[in-house]
Amino acid sequence: MSTVIKNGTIVTADLSWKADVLIEGEKIVEIGDNLSGDEELDATGCYVMPGGIDPHTHLEMPFMGTYSSDDFESGTRAALAGGTTMVVDFALPSPDGQGLLDALQMWDNKSGKAHCDFSYHMAITWWGEQVFNEMKTVVEDRGITTFKHFMAYKGALMVQDDEMYASFQRVAELGGIALVHAENGDVVADLSQRLLAEGNTGPEGHAYSRPTQVEGEATNRAIMIADMAGVPLYVVHTSCEESHEAIRRARQQGKRVWGEPLIQHLTLDESEYFNKDWDHAARRVMSPPFRNKQHQDSLWNGLQAGSLSVVATDHCAFTTEQKRYGVGDFTKIPNGTGGLEDRLPMLWTYGVGTGRLTPEEFVAVTSTNIAKILNCYPKKGAIRVGSDADILVWDPAKEKTITAAKQESAIDYNVFEGKHVKGLPRFTLTRGHVAVYDGEMRGAEGRGKFVKREANNPTNKALSTWKELTAPRPVQRSGIPASGV
Amino acid sequence: MSTVIKNGTIVTADLSWKADVLIEGEKIVEIGDNLSGDEELDATGCYVMPGGIDPHTHLEMPFMGTYSSDDFESGTRAALAGGTTMVVDFALPSPDGQGLLDALQMWDNKSGKAHCDFSYHMAITWWGEQVFNEMKTVVEDRGITTFKHFMAYKGALMVQDDEMYASFQRVAELGGIALVHAENGDVVADLSQRLLAEGNTGPEGHAYSRPTQVEGEATNRAIMIADMAGVPLYVVHTSCEESHEAIRRARQQGKRVWGEPLIQHLTLDESEYFNKDWDHAARRVMSPPFRNKQHQDSLWNGLQAGSLSVVATDHCAFTTEQKRYGVGDFTKIPNGTGGLEDRLPMLWTYGVGTGRLTPEEFVAVTSTNIAKILNCYPKKGAIRVGSDADILVWDPAKEKTITAAKQESAIDYNVFEGKHVKGLPRFTLTRGHVAVYDGEMRGAEGRGKFVKREANNPTNKALSTWKELTAPRPVQRSGIPASGV
Amino acid sequence: MSTVIKNGTIVTADLSWKADVLIEGEKIVEIGDNLSGDEELDATGCYVMPGGIDPHTHLEMPFMGTYSSDDFESGTRAALAGGTTMVVDFALPSPDGQGLLDALQMWDNKSGKAHCDFSYHMAITWWGEQVFNEMKTVVEDRGITTFKHFMAYKGALMVQDDEMYASFQRVAELGGIALVHAENGDVVADLSQRLLAEGNTGPEGHAYSRPTQVEGEATNRAIMIADMAGVPLYVVHTSCEESHEAIRRARQQGKRVWGEPLIQHLTLDESEYFNKDWDHAARRVMSPPFRNKQHQDSLWNGLQAGSLSVVATDHCAFTTEQKRYGVGDFTKIPNGTGGLEDRLPMLWTYGVGTGRLTPEEFVAVTSTNIAKILNCYPKKGAIRVGSDADILVWDPAKEKTITAAKQESAIDYNVFEGKHVKGLPRFTLTRGHVAVYDGEMRGAEGRGKFVKREANNPTNKALSTWKELTAPRPVQRSGIPASGV
Amino acid sequence: MSTVIKNGTIVTADLSWKADVLIEGEKIVEIGDNLSGDEELDATGCYVMPGGIDPHTHLEMPFMGTYSSDDFESGTRAALAGGTTMVVDFALPSPDGQGLLDALQMWDNKSGKAHCDFSYHMAITWWGEQVFNEMKTVVEDRGITTFKHFMAYKGALMVQDDEMYASFQRVAELGGIALVHAENGDVVADLSQRLLAEGNTGPEGHAYSRPTQVEGEATNRAIMIADMAGVPLYVVHTSCEESHEAIRRARQQGKRVWGEPLIQHLTLDESEYFNKDWDHAARRVMSPPFRNKQHQDSLWNGLQAGSLSVVATDHCAFTTEQKRYGVGDFTKIPNGTGGLEDRLPMLWTYGVGTGRLTPEEFVAVTSTNIAKILNCYPKKGAIRVGSDADILVWDPAKEKTITAAKQESAIDYNVFEGKHVKGLPRFTLTRGHVAVYDGEMRGAEGRGKFVKREANNPTNKALSTWKELTAPRPVQRSGIPASGV
Repeated sequence: MSTVIKNGTIVTADLSWKADVLIEGEKIVEIGDNLSGDEELDATGCYVMPGGIDPHTHLEMPFMGTYSSDDFESGTRAALAGGTTMVVDFALPSPDGQGLLDALQMWDNKSGKAHCDFSYHMAITWWGEQVFNEMKTVVEDRGITTFKHFMAYKGALMVQDDEMYASFQRVAELGGIALVHAENGDVVADLSQRLLAEGNTGPEGHAYSRPTQVEGEATNRAIMIADMAGVPLYVVHTSCEESHEAIRRARQQGKRVWGEPLIQHLTLDESEYFNKDWDHAARRVMSPPFRNKQHQDSLWNGLQAGSLSVVATDHCAFTTEQKRYGVGDFTKIPNGTGGLEDRLPMLWTYGVGTGRLTPEEFVAVTSTNIAKILNCYPKKGAIRVGSDADILVWDPAKEKTITAAKQESAIDYNVFEGKHVKGLPRFTLTRGHVAVYDGEMRGAEGRGKFVKREANNPTNKALSTWKELTAPRPVQRSGIPASGV
Repeated sequence: MSTVIKNGTIVTADLSWKADVLIEGEKIVEIGDNLSGDEELDATGCYVMPGGIDPHTHLEMPFMGTYSSDDFESGTRAALAGGTTMVVDFALPSPDGQGLLDALQMWDNKSGKAHCDFSYHMAITWWGEQVFNEMKTVVEDRGITTFKHFMAYKGALMVQDDEMYASFQRVAELGGIALVHAENGDVVADLSQRLLAEGNTGPEGHAYSRPTQVEGEATNRAIMIADMAGVPLYVVHTSCEESHEAIRRARQQGKRVWGEPLIQHLTLDESEYFNKDWDHAARRVMSPPFRNKQHQDSLWNGLQAGSLSVVATDHCAFTTEQKRYGVGDFTKIPNGTGGLEDRLPMLWTYGVGTGRLTPEEFVAVTSTNIAKILNCYPKKGAIRVGSDADILVWDPAKEKTITAAKQESAIDYNVFEGKHVKGLPRFTLTRGHVAVYDGEMRGAEGRGKFVKREANNPTNKALSTWKELTAPRPVQRSGIPASGV
Repeated sequence: MSTVIKNGTIVTADLSWKADVLIEGEKIVEIGDNLSGDEELDATGCYVMPGGIDPHTHLEMPFMGTYSSDDFESGTRAALAGGTTMVVDFALPSPDGQGLLDALQMWDNKSGKAHCDFSYHMAITWWGEQVFNEMKTVVEDRGITTFKHFMAYKGALMVQDDEMYASFQRVAELGGIALVHAENGDVVADLSQRLLAEGNTGPEGHAYSRPTQVEGEATNRAIMIADMAGVPLYVVHTSCEESHEAIRRARQQGKRVWGEPLIQHLTLDESEYFNKDWDHAARRVMSPPFRNKQHQDSLWNGLQAGSLSVVATDHCAFTTEQKRYGVGDFTKIPNGTGGLEDRLPMLWTYGVGTGRLTPEEFVAVTSTNIAKILNCYPKKGAIRVGSDADILVWDPAKEKTITAAKQESAIDYNVFEGKHVKGLPRFTLTRGHVAVYDGEMRGAEGRGKFVKREANNPTNKALSTWKELTAPRPVQRSGIPASGV
Repeated sequence: MSTVIKNGTIVTADLSWKADVLIEGEKIVEIGDNLSGDEELDATGCYVMPGGIDPHTHLEMPFMGTYSSDDFESGTRAALAGGTTMVVDFALPSPDGQGLLDALQMWDNKSGKAHCDFSYHMAITWWGEQVFNEMKTVVEDRGITTFKHFMAYKGALMVQDDEMYASFQRVAELGGIALVHAENGDVVADLSQRLLAEGNTGPEGHAYSRPTQVEGEATNRAIMIADMAGVPLYVVHTSCEESHEAIRRARQQGKRVWGEPLIQHLTLDESEYFNKDWDHAARRVMSPPFRNKQHQDSLWNGLQAGSLSVVATDHCAFTTEQKRYGVGDFTKIPNGTGGLEDRLPMLWTYGVGTGRLTPEEFVAVTSTNIAKILNCYPKKGAIRVGSDADILVWDPAKEKTITAAKQESAIDYNVFEGKHVKGLPRFTLTRGHVAVYDGEMRGAEGRGKFVKREANNPTNKALSTWKELTAPRPVQRSGIPASGV
C-alpha cells in the first residue's frame, strides 16, 4: 500500500523544489517527478513540508492532585490537526527522591494513547547518586539525551546552582544536552509573596512576579554554568530580549547555546493580563508570562538572524475551572496555555505572511532545527528518502479564524481566539498514515511510537574537542618552597 | 562512463551519513549503499563533500598596465588542488564610463581557460543611465544577480553614497543582491597621504592607513543604505570586530545581511606587517589588512554563531616583483594575496581540527551557504541527485606543510608558508571530471563553464514582502490649509 | 548695590547644600550662612541653581528670504522666562564661499539685542584655504572653539566626508571641538524625492524621510572620522537609540564623544506627525523628527548613565504661516521648533519629578556639563565665588500648564501646549540682573554679552597625549629591495 | 596654628585652577590668592588634590587563626605615603551567627591605631532576624550605610540569592547601598575541587578556578536582584569585561549601579600566575585574579566613559610565609595583595600620563566619586572651604621605581615591584596634619577618626521615586468568578 503526494512544492529547511513524494508504509521511498501510488494526495498549490515537531509539551502533567487536561490522546490529536507530527514531553520525577527510570515508567503509561510519534526530555528535579547513575541508563538504554533543569518553582522542581553544575557535567560526559527553564526561582518566590501581601492577587500579579530581568538573569547564569561544564545548552521558552541578549552574547563568544521562543510569546502580549475579565487573564497565565511588543520584535529578529532556533508551545492545557483554583491568589493559578494546534498556522501567518521568515526558515524553526538538536534527524524533520513519512501538506491559501469551539484540544478556550490565520494543513501524515485529510480528522490513537535518540551529535563532539584543547594545564615548576603551615 | 565514490561519509551542510555516490557524466545520479560504476574512487576514511566555492577572486585582474598573476588557468588549477570547484570573479568596468556588457565581454575573453566552473559578480564602478539600463540585461540575460560596490579606492573604483543608494534600489528592483567592499575611501586616501608625509612609507603604512574603524564605519553605512533601498546585502572580506558588530547588530534588527571573512583574516595577523623583511610584509598587503587576535576570535565566533556566513579568499595574486612597485610608497604596492589552494585545508585545520566548527558547518561556510545566496543551489554546493558532480573527497588524516615550492599558483611565495595542515583532498571532481587524483593534478583547461543564476532568491522575496508591508503611507487629512507662500 | 538670595538650597552638578548667595554687580562674591545685601530675594523652599545654558539655538536664522521668528531679543527673553541664562547660536557662512569672519560679522549685527549672555558655534559649510586659515582667527581672536558640520541638507549646508575629515584635523590642531548634525544627507535627499513622488507630501513625509537609521549611520561615521582626526566630538540633537548606541559604543572604546538630546525628543513622539490637523503636524517638523517611546527611554537612560551629556532645544521658531510654505511638499516646511522657555520645566517635571534624574544631574545636563565642554566653566554653569551671577531660583512647587497664549516666544503656538509642569523659576538672574521676578519679566534688551572661550580644555589635552602615544611609527628595516618599477 | 599650601594648582573632579589653600586646625578655611599661614607648604609645580579615598581594604583581617599582615597602623601609614587619606574597611561578622554590632566592636578595637580617617562597610555574612534588626542600628546609630554581600567563598562568607534579596530590600528601606563581591561561589568551589583533582594545584589553579564568566554571571545576578529590591548597587573589584558589560548594560537600562576596578587589575595581568617562581605567582593570588590585556582595556575605557566609577585596592596583605600555606593546594593560599601605597602613583602614571584620563577624572575616580557614593562628600573628597583638610600635594615630576624594600606596608614584597612611576606626593595632609613631608613620614598613629555617614543620598531618593512611580498596581475587576477549588 503506497501513497503519493502529487503536484506540490517540497519545502525543506534547505531548499524548495517541485516534486512528488512517494510513501510506502511508514517511510518516504521516492522523491521525483510523475510518481504514482495506490493513493494520491493532491498537493496542487501546496507546500509539502516535514511535519512539525513540538519539543515542549506537558500532556497529562500531574498538578495539585489532578492533571493538565490534554493528555497524549487529545494533545497529539490537536498536534496533527495543526500539522505537528511529533511532540517531546517532559518526564518529571518527583523531587522528593523519585528515580529517573521510575518516572519514565509513569510517562510510558500515559503515552500509549498518542496519535503521533513522541519522545521525552528527562527532568532533573533533585540531585544524588541515584540520579547520577540512572542518567547513564536514560541516555544509553532509553535513548533520551536531553535533560531539563528548572531554575524556578522553588520548593518544588527547582534545583540549586551546585546541583545544576554537577548535573551539567554529567550530561556533558554522556554526550547529551542540558535544558533549562530559566527564571530566578528565589526572586520569583519572594516577590510573589510580597505582591500578594500588597494586594496584587489577580492574574496580572503573575506577570508582575516574573519580570523579564528575572528570566534574563537565569538564562545568563545557566549559560555560564553550561560553559564551565562544557555542555551544549538549550534554553526553553525564551520570551524576552534580556534572555535573548544573553543567548546571543554567548553565541558570539563561541558558546553552543540555542533559544526556543514560543508561538504565544511571538504573537500575544502582556496586555492580556490587564483584561477586566478574570478568566480571560487567568487563562493566559504561564511562565514566563507574555511580554510587550519590543520583546516580540526581539524574538522575531532572533529567528530570522539565527540567534534563536526553534518555535515551540509549552502546551500545558488547563480548563477554566482548573484556572479558577487561583481566584484570590495568583500563585495558585495553574501555569500553562495551549498552542499545539495553532503553532504552525500562527507562525506562518505572522512570520511567512509578513515576510519576516522565508518558507525554508519556517521549516527550520518548526521542525528541522530541533530534529538536529535532538539528534533524530533525518528520521524526523526531513523530506528525504528513508525518512519517516511525517509530512505536512500546507495550503497557503486556506484560511480560518481560530476558535475554541472548533478545536481538538480538550479545554474550553483558546488563547488565540479570534485570530485570523492564512495557511493551514490540507493533509497531515504521521508515519505514512493520513491523519488529517482536507479538514477531516482520521486519528489513530495509540499509533504513535517513542523516538529513541543517540547521544553525541556533531555539536557535542566539536565542543568537547574545543574544551579539551583549551583545558587548564599546570605550570611546570621546580624549586617550589616548603609549605608555610 | 560512470564514476562511483565508495565507502566514504557524505558530509553536507545539513547532515553526515555513510553512502556511496554515483556520477554519470557531469551529474550525481545516485546516492546509496553498495553502488558501482565504471571507475571507483576509494573514499575509505574520507568525507565526501560538495566542492568548495570561492565567491571572491580576482584572476588576471588589470593593474597598472599589467595583470594579477594568477589567471583563470592557474587560478582554477590552484582552486581544484585545494578542493575548490567553483570561483566567482569580479567583472570590473572601467570607471571612466565603460558599459557593463562591455566589461563582461572582457571577462569572457579571459575565463575561457578555466579548469572549473565559475561565475561573475558585476561591479558598479560609476553611475549613469547606461549602467542603470544594462543592469537589467546583466541580470536577465547574463544570469548575474550580484552587484559589487567599492566604498574605497577613491579616484578609481569608489562610488559615492548617492550612487550607491541609487544602485542598491535598482538591484532591489531586479531581485539581486548588493555587495560592498566596505572601507571609507575618503579617509583612507587622506590618511595614506598623511602617513607618507610623516615617513610611514613601508608596508606597515598600508595597515596603518586602513584601521578597523574605517572598515566598521563603511560596513555600517552600507547596511543602512541597503536597508533604505530594501535590498539584501553581502559584505565581502569582513575582517574585524567593528564590521562584524555592525553586521550582527543589523541582523538583530531583522535586516538581511551576510558577512564573508577571508581565510587570511581568520589565521594571519597584523604582526606580519612588522616583519623586518620588506618583501615578507609587502606580500601580505591586501585590503583590508590583517588584524589582531581579538578580531580573529570575533570572526571565528561569527562563523560558529551564524552571524558570518561564508569563508572566501579574495585571491588576487601578485608576484614579489609586482609587489616591489611599492618600495618607498606603500600605496603603490598592489593589493592582494593568494589563498585559493589553501582555503579549505587551513579552515579545516584551524576550524574543525580545534572544535570551533563541526564538519557540517565547514561545508556550510565553504560551499553551501554561498551557493544559496548566489541562487545556484543545489546545482552547486550540494551532494544530491541531480546536482553537478563538483565533489571533494576529503582525507582528514592527510597532512602537509604549506610551501610555495609546491603550489599551483603562479606566484613565487605563499602567505601561509610553513603552516602545517591536517585535512587535504584525496580527490576533487569538477562536473564529474577527476581533477585531483590522490595528489596528482589532472587539469582540464577550458572545461570550466559559466554558471548562470536566477534573481529573486527566497530572501529577496521575504524582504520585499516585509518592505511593502511596512512602507510609508500618507495620513489622510481634510482641511489642509492654503500654502503660506 | 548688592543682592542676596536667602534661605534656599544651592544645587550644583556636584552637591546640594543650604546657603545664601551674595551678588555684587555681575558676580557671585560670597556663599554662606546669614548673608545680607541691598536687595533680598527669598528662596525659601527653592533650589538655587546655575542658570541654564542652551548650547543649540538658531535665532533670526536666514531662511528662504525671511528669518526664523525668534530673534536674539524675543529668544533670549523666552530663555530667561524659563530659567536659561546663556544661549549658543550657530554662525552660518553661506556655503557659496562666504568667509567665517564675514559670517560672524553678520551674527554680531543680530545679537546686540540679547537679554542674556551668548556665544557662537562656527559652522563649516564649505571647505577651502580661506576657511582653513580663518579658523585660527576664529579660535584665537574670537574665542570660538566649536565648529559645526552638517552631514545633511544636501546642496546647501552639507559637507562631504573628505571635507569633514580635513576640517576635523584642523579643529584638532587648534584645540577645538567638532560638532556634527548627523544625518546622511544623500539618503535623506533621495528618499524625500521618492516619498514626494509616491504621494507622501504631508508633514509625516518629513518623519519618513529621516528615519533613525539615517541618523545612527551618520553619527557612527562622524565618530570614526573624529577618531581618525584625533578631535573630541559633540553630536547635536541625538534623538534615537541608533545614534546613542553609536555614541556609547565609541565611549566604551575610549573615544571622547558627547551626545546632546533635545527636550523635544525626550518628551514628544512621532505620533504628532500623524495628527489629522496639518498645522499641528507641520509645527512639529524639525530635523531629526520626533521618535517613539523606545527611543525616548534610550535618551533618558543615557542622561542617567552619563553616556549622553547635555539637554538642549535647537530652538528655531517659525510661525504657522511660515510652516505653511510646505503645504503640498513637506520638504518646503521650514525645519524647527521652539523650546527655550520650556526646556527646564519640562526636564524637571519628566526627569526629576519621576526620579529618573537627581537634582544634581539636572543641573549637570542643563548647565554645568556644557559649560565644561565649551570651556567657559566656572564663569558659567557654577554657583561659586567669582562666577557670573547667572542664577536660577527654582521653585519645585510652582505649577502651570504650558500654553502659547502666555509665552514670550514670538510664535503663535507651542509644541508643548497643554503639558502640565511642576517646577518653575521664581527668579532668574543674568549677570546679577533679576530678569524674572516671581512671574514678572524685567527684560534688559541689549544687556547680553558675548562669551569668549579658550581652546584646549582638559579633554583636548588628554586626547592629544593619547594620540601622540599611539601614533603609527615606521618599522626600521635594512635591506629594502629595489623598486620593481 | 594654620597651614597654607602655596603656589599650586588645585585639581578637583570639577575643575582645576591656581590658588592657595589655607588650613586651620583640621579644616580648609580659605581658598584664594596670596594666602598666608603659620606654616607654608610650597606647591610650586604641583597639583593640590583631595586626598585619595580607598573604599576597599582588609586590615588585620582574621584568617586561619592569624591576620592579614597590614593592620590599621601600617596600612594607613602606607596609605598616607601614597597620598590616600581615608580607607574604608569591611567589618565581617562571623557567619556562624555573630551579630553586626558585635562585629563592629571587634573592628573598633582594631582601628584605634589608624593614622588617617576611616570608615567601615558592614558585611552581611548570614541572614536572620537579628541581622535584619541590627541593620537599622548600624545605619542610624553607627552611620554605616553600605552593606557588603559575598557571592563567593562558599561555606564561609557566601550568602544565597534569597538571603541577598531579603538583605537588599532591607538596605533599600534604610536608604543604604548594597555592595557585592560578585563571583559564583558554587561554581568556584566545585571547579576548585576538580582542578585540584586533575593536578592543577599551583597558584595558576587559582586563576583557572575563577574565570571571568564566573564574575560576569554573579555581577549580572546581583544587578537583577538589586533592581528587584530597588536598591543602588556598588560592585567591588570589577575586574573583567563580562562584569563591566553587565554593569554598563544595567546603567543603560536606567539602573543605579557603580563598578570599582582595582589598580591591580588595571595594570597587572594573568601572566603573573604563570611565573615559574611559585612565590611570585602566589603573592599575586587574589579574588578575582588578574585578567588579560583586553580586560584591562575594558576597565580603562570604563573609567573614561564613566561606566566605571572608582579605583580601589582591596588591600589585604599577606606575607610570603602566609602565602606558603597554600603550597600544594592553591585553595589554601590566602587571597589578597597590597596596593594602598601604590594606587595613586600607578593610576597617575598609566592613566594621566598616557592621556587616558584627565587630572580631573583622576581625582573623581580616586576620591570624589566614592565620597559622594558613601555620602561623606564634601567633608571628604573635596578641596572646599569647610571640608576636612585631607589634602594631597602631587608632584607630577617626581619619579621612583616601586620596590618592597622601601615601602611602608608590613609585607616582604610588592606586586608592582619594578614598575617605574612618575607622579608622587610631595605632601599628604590628614585632617590638617602633614603626614608626608617631601618624602619624610610624619605618622600620627591613633589620630584617625571614624567617619559617620548619612543614609539616603540623592541617588537613593531618585531611585525610590522611580520605583514608587512604576510599582505594580492591581487591575480593578468586578465579577471575579468563584474559586475553582
